[in-house]
Amino acid sequence: MENSQLHKIFFAGSVAVIGASANETKRGYRVIETLLREKYEGKIYPVNPKLNSILGIRCYHSITEVREDIDIALITTAADTIPVILEECGKKNVKGVVIISGGFGELGAKGRQKEKEISAIAKKYNIRIIGPNTSGMISLHNKLNLVGIQDVPRGNIALLSQSGNIALHIITEAGLRSNVGFSHYVGVGNEADLKFHEYLKYFEDDPATRAIVMYVEGMREGRSFLQQAYQTTRKKPIILLKSGRSVTGMRSAGSHTGSLAGISEVSRTAFRRAGIVTIDNLDELFPVTEALSILPPIHKNRVAILADGGGHATIASDMLSDYGIEIPQLGEKTQKRLAEILPANASLKNPVDVAGGTDENPSIFADCAKIILNDPSVDGLIIVGLFGGYSIRFADKLRYMEEDAAHQMGKLVKKIGKPIILQSLYALKNTHSLGLLRYYGIPVYESLGIACKCLASLSQYGKYLNHTQKRPVHFVFNWKQRAKTECIEIIEKAKSEGRRSLLETEAKRIFFLHKAPVYEEDIAASADHAVKLAKKIGGKVVLKIVSQDILHKSDAGGVKVNLETEDEIRTAFDKIISNVKDYNPGADIKGCLVSPMSDKGVEIIIGTKIDDQFGPVIMVGLGGILVEVLKDVAFRVLPITRTSAKGMLSEIKSAPILDGVRGEQPVDKKAILDLLLVVSEIVESYPDIQEIDLNPVIARNDGISIVDARIILKEGEFKSE
Amino acid sequence: MENSQLHKIFFAGSVAVIGASANETKRGYRVIETLLREKYEGKIYPVNPKLNSILGIRCYHSITEVREDIDIALITTAADTIPVILEECGKKNVKGVVIISGGFGELGAKGRQKEKEISAIAKKYNIRIIGPNTSGMISLHNKLNLVGIQDVPRGNIALLSQSGNIALHIITEAGLRSNVGFSHYVGVGNEADLKFHEYLKYFEDDPATRAIVMYVEGMREGRSFLQQAYQTTRKKPIILLKSGRSVTGMRSAGSHTGSLAGISEVSRTAFRRAGIVTIDNLDELFPVTEALSILPPIHKNRVAILADGGGHATIASDMLSDYGIEIPQLGEKTQKRLAEILPANASLKNPVDVAGGTDENPSIFADCAKIILNDPSVDGLIIVGLFGGYSIRFADKLRYMEEDAAHQMGKLVKKIGKPIILQSLYALKNTHSLGLLRYYGIPVYESLGIACKCLASLSQYGKYLNHTQKRPVHFVFNWKQRAKTECIEIIEKAKSEGRRSLLETEAKRIFFLHKAPVYEEDIAASADHAVKLAKKIGGKVVLKIVSQDILHKSDAGGVKVNLETEDEIRTAFDKIISNVKDYNPGADIKGCLVSPMSDKGVEIIIGTKIDDQFGPVIMVGLGGILVEVLKDVAFRVLPITRTSAKGMLSEIKSAPILDGVRGEQPVDKKAILDLLLVVSEIVESYPDIQEIDLNPVIARNDGISIVDARIILKEGEFKSE
Repeated sequence: MENSQLHKIFFAGSVAVIGASANETKRGYRVIETLLREKYEGKIYPVNPKLNSILGIRCYHSITEVREDIDIALITTAADTIPVILEECGKKNVKGVVIISGGFGELGAKGRQKEKEISAIAKKYNIRIIGPNTSGMISLHNKLNLVGIQDVPRGNIALLSQSGNIALHIITEAGLRSNVGFSHYVGVGNEADLKFHEYLKYFEDDPATRAIVMYVEGMREGRSFLQQAYQTTRKKPIILLKSGRSVTGMRSAGSHTGSLAGISEVSRTAFRRAGIVTIDNLDELFPVTEALSILPPIHKNRVAILADGGGHATIASDMLSDYGIEIPQLGEKTQKRLAEILPANASLKNPVDVAGGTDENPSIFADCAKIILNDPSVDGLIIVGLFGGYSIRFADKLRYMEEDAAHQMGKLVKKIGKPIILQSLYALKNTHSLGLLRYYGIPVYESLGIACKCLASLSQYGKYLNHTQKRPVHFVFNWKQRAKTECIEIIEKAKSEGRRSLLETEAKRIFFLHKAPVYEEDIAASADHAVKLAKKIGGKVVLKIVSQDILHKSDAGGVKVNLETEDEIRTAFDKIISNVKDYNPGADIKGCLVSPMSDKGVEIIIGTKIDDQFGPVIMVGLGGILVEVLKDVAFRVLPITRTSAKGMLSEIKSAPILDGVRGEQPVDKKAILDLLLVVSEIVESYPDIQEIDLNPVIARNDGISIVDARIILKEGEFKSE
Repeated sequence: MENSQLHKIFFAGSVAVIGASANETKRGYRVIETLLREKYEGKIYPVNPKLNSILGIRCYHSITEVREDIDIALITTAADTIPVILEECGKKNVKGVVIISGGFGELGAKGRQKEKEISAIAKKYNIRIIGPNTSGMISLHNKLNLVGIQDVPRGNIALLSQSGNIALHIITEAGLRSNVGFSHYVGVGNEADLKFHEYLKYFEDDPATRAIVMYVEGMREGRSFLQQAYQTTRKKPIILLKSGRSVTGMRSAGSHTGSLAGISEVSRTAFRRAGIVTIDNLDELFPVTEALSILPPIHKNRVAILADGGGHATIASDMLSDYGIEIPQLGEKTQKRLAEILPANASLKNPVDVAGGTDENPSIFADCAKIILNDPSVDGLIIVGLFGGYSIRFADKLRYMEEDAAHQMGKLVKKIGKPIILQSLYALKNTHSLGLLRYYGIPVYESLGIACKCLASLSQYGKYLNHTQKRPVHFVFNWKQRAKTECIEIIEKAKSEGRRSLLETEAKRIFFLHKAPVYEEDIAASADHAVKLAKKIGGKVVLKIVSQDILHKSDAGGVKVNLETEDEIRTAFDKIISNVKDYNPGADIKGCLVSPMSDKGVEIIIGTKIDDQFGPVIMVGLGGILVEVLKDVAFRVLPITRTSAKGMLSEIKSAPILDGVRGEQPVDKKAILDLLLVVSEIVESYPDIQEIDLNPVIARNDGISIVDARIILKEGEFKSE
């Protein structure tokens, strides 16, 4: 239903241009001129109250003057005019509008209000909005270019961008450096109505689209996007650059569109889990898209390098190794076959360096490629160096042998199902042999770094496809389904008392009820009571203040550790109470929690918070210095499965500590995984939870214990104090 | 003297081509053809026993037939022919030879022997060798092209490369994408005679050279290179790509030239300390060189971004932030002036986004650049987006305003002494306005990533120049100068006993004599003796086996800790002796070292070893997990100054631990710095030392203690056991 409406928009048979203009530099002119030049086959209805015709076409004073049906409207007029225009569009039964105009969410709260207003009108009339604050939309196979960029190559890449200039960048690059083109371009703008995930769904089903490339500054509905992307990447690759990682970058992005830039680490892992190929460097965005749109993915992460010079081979080895790609030694048979056609001083192991063996006959490249790709230990090939320029570098006649090699290699990729990527010093010269390679779907790059990144991306996507079948869908919560009555009561009680922070005992009780390993412990109301509880526990104990008014217990002098004798316990109890009274005379003191001294073991920290774009996320790290100083943590968007919990633990750099280093025994990793899943379950069970902080959890060889637990509830709904 | 000989080689007035050929695809033909085409003004003497003339020039059957003086010879014949040819060259008083031929050090031990042979002949006749195994040499200002690459642009960049194809890559790129060119190219090959540092010294003094770009796979004399580079970078920038970081990369480099690839982390910090701008990605190598050869460096690390679209500005912010560049908010006055010429929705803070303000008049870019660069908080500017293509994107007439802006900005850079770098989507189109910018010395890049890297490199070099004046020269050892007689005796004794490993007591004694903080401790020969020594120390003690045959004491059961009572000490002593006897029945046991239990504190590890390229290097890290699991260490080439010792400590990621985290007191950093300097002094004093390992050193608030010390001596000279 959704998709059929988007289809009607992309394949509109008629378009009104509201804000049509006679001024050549204005969008309202350029779009009409472009539609005419590019032979749009539908009907164009310019609308401008002051004009009677534009470029030979009748201009209407209002859309309501048009008698025929209108599928979509492009709107370029100022923000304030748009509610009235939308009402008119609604009455004309327009199915979609593209709102170029800025002046909405990107300007702050007031603008967001305006956005809500226009969304409401659109909803009333079942109009879908692209934008506002967008550069427009192009549906290449409908010859419907509402942006006015010229010479957009037609092809099977769908482009979604939150910046018109980045879209222009990618489109220009495609035209200059590749043989591929676009099925659709959408400037998503502020996502007032149509969101990233809705476009994605359309492109997933669109037979004209083979790959999707995205430039994102911030998303309105990150979780819906992830959920959709997770489905889409099984069928088609998504390549995405998310900017606004840095503080200045966020400031810059903030000044540009209406949504907030997200936490870079969270989005990076979330995108990766959804099978998206993420890119940091704009230079790589289009090339990787090109490669993924035309080449088979690499399924086993093992590639060969074929070079006509050691320098390029060495640098390529370094870069591919940095990407974690294996460069295995070639099989003996392969080496023997290569030796038959290459000179004695050639390197045959991998990288293969032809050592001048192609100087007088570059068609030998094809023979080498064939031998190498037939080696079962190799799943892809990168050719680096001078291929494509032998006629320039050596002798003119070599061009014919090079062209022969291009024909052979092009057919080889199709036949053998393993990709070849070519880096050529002469890529800019666009020689005939390089053109041939592109024709056959072998991408050609001037940059060695980009060529290696493309190969690495083919491998990343291949690896994902290999694993994805077994994995369940991740990004949907079954809210409240596993909630427990007593826990709900604890949370409701806190809310009814106007508290956002649960008491430590309350938080621990929730964990206990969800079968997490918390110490047996209780609140002592008096020093006597503390002594009694300590005896029951046996061994050394800790006293901690329990008060809803004391969030940072240590700062308030509310924690005493290592207490053994009756005397020590009594003194500590009294001291804590007096400390806390000094710290906050009005504090409501419930008593002191009496807990066993935590055993020796590895400190773990587990936390959850709510990300602006992706909702609840979970974090894990090894306690103390490793988190505080080295920031060695792993994130996931919640909920998580056991597989992703394992992934988190293996991702932190200090992970080997869990397996035991320096003669220590390994800790009980299974118990940590269980706890991560419990945390996920608790967040899912109680939508009121804003943050969880387990710091520390102590992991030993024979189990783990939650030593301290905090739960913070969401603001809002609550009466303020 | 050296340099004047290199000068005579580069500016040779006559050149013999030994191995001249009539075959068009052979070097011996192509070089002569190139010299003629490029109008080399000296004399050419082809040499080939079978030919009488080549390309109309008389061909000699041997160089000895030539009557006139010959300055240099290019030799392309097989490795085995070269000794005889060199003898002939020597008799003709040839000053330098360029040996293209391979078959030397790159093939292993046998080839290295051949290299020594030809070096010896060359030395006898005072001939300097470029190569062997080189692509050749080009001296542009002498029109002396011994490589045969066509269309090498002339200019003021010197190029040193260990790969002919990488040189070709850089030269081709320069011709296609810049307005700059080369003063010299040298393929250094195997460095059999002339080494990197000798070329560097020449280029430092060469008035025709303004910047030096290098591609290195491995260096023969890394320390001499560092020493020279340290001098050179004060006058001219050096930009260097060192490949062979990865295992496969090393394999690949190993197959290519004769020297071993070095440890990447050591070389990276060593190069940086010498003021060298290091590059990992080949795509950046030439652009950064171009920028540093024509633009003033950035002295205060603060830049502004000027964009005509938010997307490019945001990505540039992210990338520059990743490089540690500050992007300060512009001053109020600056913002006010910008507001006067830009539309209301423009971003004025930095990044500056003109928000369509240049769409109808791109000359406003120059006005913005002038306002921004006059802001005292800005030391450089990057312009990103569409500049250079306004006539393509918007309207043809805009080209004139763009050209006006180019003229203004070009003169602005000269006048104000702050650099501008331009990234343009239309860089490939080479429009007239972009040509103008290049003419004025403003580099133009298509790639945003590369443009940002260039800006970052200008900043890195500017920062280095600001600090370099105060720093002493680093890379020279005063061998043995501070050696102590007793230490020499300890080392000589070990050598005389055929030991490569000093006993722990011996190693500690050396540290003690160099005033390093070692515990007072002694060897107990019996359990009784151990008890006596323990009483003297007081408190808990540690017993450790002392035996030249037991290197790994813990593995042998040779360490017992935490001993207090007489009983504990006796039992431990006996157990150690019996453990060690079980472990190695033939071990020569000197007794047990009795030391105080180390205090609580932060564990530090300090070590030295000898790097293949750079000689003795030192490493420091925080003990235990941080080094073992997280590999969090810092390296320096020895000797070090206090400044570099400080640099090492601040470089490790766990450094904040030294300043006290989680309520701990800071440790005595001064004592750690002192110890690092003592280690440097010890390495310098005793050239016999191969490795030092202090693991752990315990650092407390009030000092540090070396708990365990190992010193390994160099192999060789020693009689084997």
